[in-house]
Amino acid sequence: MDVKGFLIDLDGVLYVGDTALEGALQGIDFLKERGYRFRFVSNTTRKCRRTLAKKLRLFGFAVDETSIFTPPLAAIARMKAEGKHRCMLLTTGDVYKDFEQWCNTRVGSGPVDYVVVGDAGDTMTYRNLNRAFRVINDGAEIIALEKDRFWMTPEGLMLSAGPFVAALEYATGKSATVMGKPSRDFFSMALSDMGLPACDVVMIGDDIVTDVGGAKNAGMRAILVRTGKFSQVSLERSTVKPDAVIDSIAGIGDLL
Amino acid sequence: MDVKGFLIDLDGVLYVGDTALEGALQGIDFLKERGYRFRFVSNTTRKCRRTLAKKLRLFGFAVDETSIFTPPLAAIARMKAEGKHRCMLLTTGDVYKDFEQWCNTRVGSGPVDYVVVGDAGDTMTYRNLNRAFRVINDGAEIIALEKDRFWMTPEGLMLSAGPFVAALEYATGKSATVMGKPSRDFFSMALSDMGLPACDVVMIGDDIVTDVGGAKNAGMRAILVRTGKFSQVSLERSTVKPDAVIDSIAGIGDLL
Repeated sequence: MDVKGFLIDLDGVLYVGDTALEGALQGIDFLKERGYRFRFVSNTTRKCRRTLAKKLRLFGFAVDETSIFTPPLAAIARMKAEGKHRCMLLTTGDVYKDFEQWCNTRVGSGPVDYVVVGDAGDTMTYRNLNRAFRVINDGAEIIALEKDRFWMTPEGLMLSAGPFVAALEYATGKSATVMGKPSRDFFSMALSDMGLPACDVVMIGDDIVTDVGGAKNAGMRAILVRTGKFSQVSLERSTVKPDAVIDSIAGIGDLL
Repeated sequence: MDVKGFLIDLDGVLYVGDTALEGALQGIDFLKERGYRFRFVSNTTRKCRRTLAKKLRLFGFAVDETSIFTPPLAAIARMKAEGKHRCMLLTTGDVYKDFEQWCNTRVGSGPVDYVVVGDAGDTMTYRNLNRAFRVINDGAEIIALEKDRFWMTPEGLMLSAGPFVAALEYATGKSATVMGKPSRDFFSMALSDMGLPACDVVMIGDDIVTDVGGAKNAGMRAILVRTGKFSQVSLERSTVKPDAVIDSIAGIGDLL
């Protein structure tokens, strides 16, 4: 394979929940030793970049936070480009820390440019959704950090940000701008940070649609791993075809 | 006007919030004295039929609960027709009392036929939406008591059932069946209870889309009142044309 760099998904590729996947450390070490460039691209919207980097270091990955790209980073980049910084967050966890570096997230003091919707868990109350709805009605645009339908947890399937984005779109008649994978702009941000064109880069992920489909749509090649949310049925049913399928990122050395 | 009966909206036509509209009592008395048949058709999903009738009697309207038609009644009629009675309610207020007369609303004991979504206010938590989502994923169908986007309250605009129906549709890929106005089946239920064909009946309402548009689509004529949520702008912009526009239901005698 003629390749100079990699974009690597986190959850389902390096770890699942609080457990690192077997061989993932060796896989990353292999890429590092051979001098490949790589960045991490995750659709997670509950943790700030610093907390994600800390989590990876606890697993033993020697990762700098600037090599991690998440939807909040893309949202902030867009706001910077537009010179806007007043936003209302519908998020949970500590992801607000990423936004605080650029945005004024305290609503109630005048007009708001963007309502930013992430996977907000129990914070997604009727009261908060009503506040967001009124702010959008008054002129704010909707930024969807991701528009996934659901995700798998130990307690069963849980609604992701997508359904709530759809609810606000229905209520206001406005369409959200989606920040994370499979958005082309999102991949571009990581590619340009690596200084490589899409044709020299391979995406490694466990989601046939968001990772593989998104990467190929952005001009990259893509490897699907059989870990995380991988499903043989989804692979067979999909019109998207990965360039390779491997048991886990541990096998990346053999493939190259 | 050659007419034998009326369908009459409640909120915005007879009262607004907790205040009866001036002349509404006289309007209803006029219809009664002249021997017109009439039924009440409301999209409210927070109150059971009995509570609605009690509210009307407090205002002085001599109304029997069997003359009131609400989306829960339509939902129950459908479930009866299909011989199904296991449902999960996403509602608030005492509307569950209507359902209890036919349905088993206690989820957790086996499969569920329908998830019934009304205007649920603060009951629309992330936890409850997740429960509904899993039940739909396991095979239940979605019944939307109404699919309105929002409604006006003294505290400002509030999300109605529609956005949450849209969220569950997005999450599950299933389409909801809408029970209330402007559904043709809903009007038919009240018409057949009156024993009159649509061509002999006039709808009186304050909503140009749900009331006037819905009624005309069901073959009735329709009068728009300038009370409740009436808006001159909405009337002028709409392609729907009412057969008459009157200041309030108090003026129904003059029109006839």
